[in-house]
Amino acid sequence: MARLIALQTHDVRFPTSQTLDGSDAMNPDPDYSAAYLRLRTDADDGLEGHGFVFTIGRGNDVQVAALRALEDHLVGRDVDELLADLGGVWRELVHDSQLRWLGPEKGIMHMAIGAAVNALWDLKAKRAGQPLWQLLAGMTPEEIVDLVDFRYLTDALTREEALAILRAAEPGRAEREATLVREGYPAYTTTPGWLGYDDDKLARLCREAVAEGFAQIKLKVGGDLDDDVRRLRIAREVCGPDVRIAVDANQRWDVADAVRWMDALKEFDLAWIEEPTSPDDVLGHAAIAKAVAPVPVATGEHTANRVLFKQFLQADALGILQLDATRVAGVNENIAILLLAAKFGVPVCPHAGGVGLCEAVQHLAMFDYVAVSGTTEGRMIEFVDHLHEHFVTPVDVRDGRYHAPKSPGAGTEMLAESIVEYEHG
Amino acid sequence: MARLIALQTHDVRFPTSQTLDGSDAMNPDPDYSAAYLRLRTDADDGLEGHGFVFTIGRGNDVQVAALRALEDHLVGRDVDELLADLGGVWRELVHDSQLRWLGPEKGIMHMAIGAAVNALWDLKAKRAGQPLWQLLAGMTPEEIVDLVDFRYLTDALTREEALAILRAAEPGRAEREATLVREGYPAYTTTPGWLGYDDDKLARLCREAVAEGFAQIKLKVGGDLDDDVRRLRIAREVCGPDVRIAVDANQRWDVADAVRWMDALKEFDLAWIEEPTSPDDVLGHAAIAKAVAPVPVATGEHTANRVLFKQFLQADALGILQLDATRVAGVNENIAILLLAAKFGVPVCPHAGGVGLCEAVQHLAMFDYVAVSGTTEGRMIEFVDHLHEHFVTPVDVRDGRYHAPKSPGAGTEMLAESIVEYEHG
Repeated sequence: MARLIALQTHDVRFPTSQTLDGSDAMNPDPDYSAAYLRLRTDADDGLEGHGFVFTIGRGNDVQVAALRALEDHLVGRDVDELLADLGGVWRELVHDSQLRWLGPEKGIMHMAIGAAVNALWDLKAKRAGQPLWQLLAGMTPEEIVDLVDFRYLTDALTREEALAILRAAEPGRAEREATLVREGYPAYTTTPGWLGYDDDKLARLCREAVAEGFAQIKLKVGGDLDDDVRRLRIAREVCGPDVRIAVDANQRWDVADAVRWMDALKEFDLAWIEEPTSPDDVLGHAAIAKAVAPVPVATGEHTANRVLFKQFLQADALGILQLDATRVAGVNENIAILLLAAKFGVPVCPHAGGVGLCEAVQHLAMFDYVAVSGTTEGRMIEFVDHLHEHFVTPVDVRDGRYHAPKSPGAGTEMLAESIVEYEHG
Repeated sequence: MARLIALQTHDVRFPTSQTLDGSDAMNPDPDYSAAYLRLRTDADDGLEGHGFVFTIGRGNDVQVAALRALEDHLVGRDVDELLADLGGVWRELVHDSQLRWLGPEKGIMHMAIGAAVNALWDLKAKRAGQPLWQLLAGMTPEEIVDLVDFRYLTDALTREEALAILRAAEPGRAEREATLVREGYPAYTTTPGWLGYDDDKLARLCREAVAEGFAQIKLKVGGDLDDDVRRLRIAREVCGPDVRIAVDANQRWDVADAVRWMDALKEFDLAWIEEPTSPDDVLGHAAIAKAVAPVPVATGEHTANRVLFKQFLQADALGILQLDATRVAGVNENIAILLLAAKFGVPVCPHAGGVGLCEAVQHLAMFDYVAVSGTTEGRMIEFVDHLHEHFVTPVDVRDGRYHAPKSPGAGTEMLAESIVEYEHG
């Protein structure tokens, strides 16, 4: 019998603010960071589960303290029992009433639980010798719905409806898996679009993005309207008419601002407007979505939990759902969110970038394609070419597509030497 | 010139789970705790600013770590400058882009900012020689709106609308202040209603509540329907027909559960149903509110920020707004919430209990009466008779009313010996 014997944490920070990588209208100087978690066992296989919360610098130590608060739940536990019931573990962690008070189900404590859940999935996938997407896509519909907590969802999605969605997708699984392995999953790139880059760098990076085969790029907007118009002109000119251009306001606007600003950007035929306002403002997004149609509203990277996603879908407040690997409580909650999106017929285009988000989130999108929505139509995973070199199994993005990981695990393991080099304080 | 020279923190925990004080359907065994903050200056007056976040036990250390993350923003600053522009300080803390990522504007980091903001208000009121409610109620409408960040609110409440509300209330301020000092502010009590109490204790505490002059009590529900019916029968019998009885489900239900359960409790003529479901579920609350009318839905103690309150009001999802002194980012955000409630004409009945919440929140309700809504009609402050002995200026609740504090400060200072005795770990 193997036991979980240690929960180790690291405060890892990369000094990205020096180059303005990741700069946008709300986040002028992020230091991309990870509150990092390693779960060690006494099994002979030497396998570990790794997970993290992506943050942008200050406060990463507080996020690490929240990881430590989960130690008593996990250390000393029987590994096989834990991994055999990750739905149960999720409920135990999320519904710890004292820890729950600190959210509930949002912010630092909820993200810490997400990192622990993701680390357990990493360990489970490594022990199974499979990449996470394949492990998930091989589970039965019943096993998958057992991972989901339907509390607060049943007015929009019941367990039975979720089962029906998964069963309907079952017949095509093998064929889609073969297609995925052969062709990969569509990507778009945000690399050209950071606000801190000058026009020359923007033009050069747009050119490179097109040359690399991306069919969509994304630009940050919301700082200054004249700047946005000038930058969009450059991007459209360099990319040509066939590459889609999305814009991202990073929560900069109130409702009326968003409507006015998007009206001024009408000529650019935008693929979507992302995070126009507060990520908590379901009704605000619904009003914006109505006003800026047919341009769809995209949001999700700061959406705290499945209950908010449920409402965004119920209110027609988003047209593109951008789940994030480390914002909610891990793989299990993201499966709930994929099922909600499937129920409402809304495409999921995961948020990525940051530290390791591309590595982590690709597994969810690929699982969705094989076993949930069954399609990549209108779907793509964000790609930013930052910091991949610090991961044991970095993403393989070529020709504008994510190629499916083959290595066992959830993609969340950072190189030991990177952790040492960038450990903070 | 005085400087802020130290931010001291304490992890204070009271072992309330031993007596099941505070037990409800979601929180069976809370250990009422405070992540506690002291701001010290080098001024000759020796005055300090105290604030805290109320938690229920595990994770209080993480909340303390979040308080510490604010040290660099505050220590070393000129005290007069800080206190002269608490609206500016609020914006600086809440919009620190790196810390904001950890919410945004919700959970542990947002509550930490609330504690710091409240501690600054405590210091400001002590230096002014006034209780906080009186200090606030003596500010001009312009000064008050300068405390509020209208970002994300302008589709429901603009600065100009807020000014108009405050100006309309200005003529009656002096008269209402005199009435408040003479008569106090209405209270209701939750002391009888904890789920962990047996029937005899429930009956005894109901009897005492009526004898003490409370016109409303509140019972916890949502564990077991038969138990709830039996306990409500006891309460109604003991209290008689004229005492209002509210119930509180502490987020236990999904939408359909709430509607069914409340239908089964129809005979008891309930004053309100509190926290029927997830505190994030604006649309769910709206559906419940429609179904259970005329019983109003009450919520707010877990509502993360002003953006969620805005939506609850826009969607007619609550009939009673229960703001909390330490859930949102302090006095400033609660002023925004009071103004929103006034705009929508919804009564505010603050959440209290816990550790020091009664002491803190009474100032907000009293300020509201004197300078914002101008009325106590349909309004009352929750009262729970726990842990007041640990505060320097404990509440004065007699004859079912909160009597207005006269001591300078925000009511948030705990006795030094209590901090020492209950410091954790």
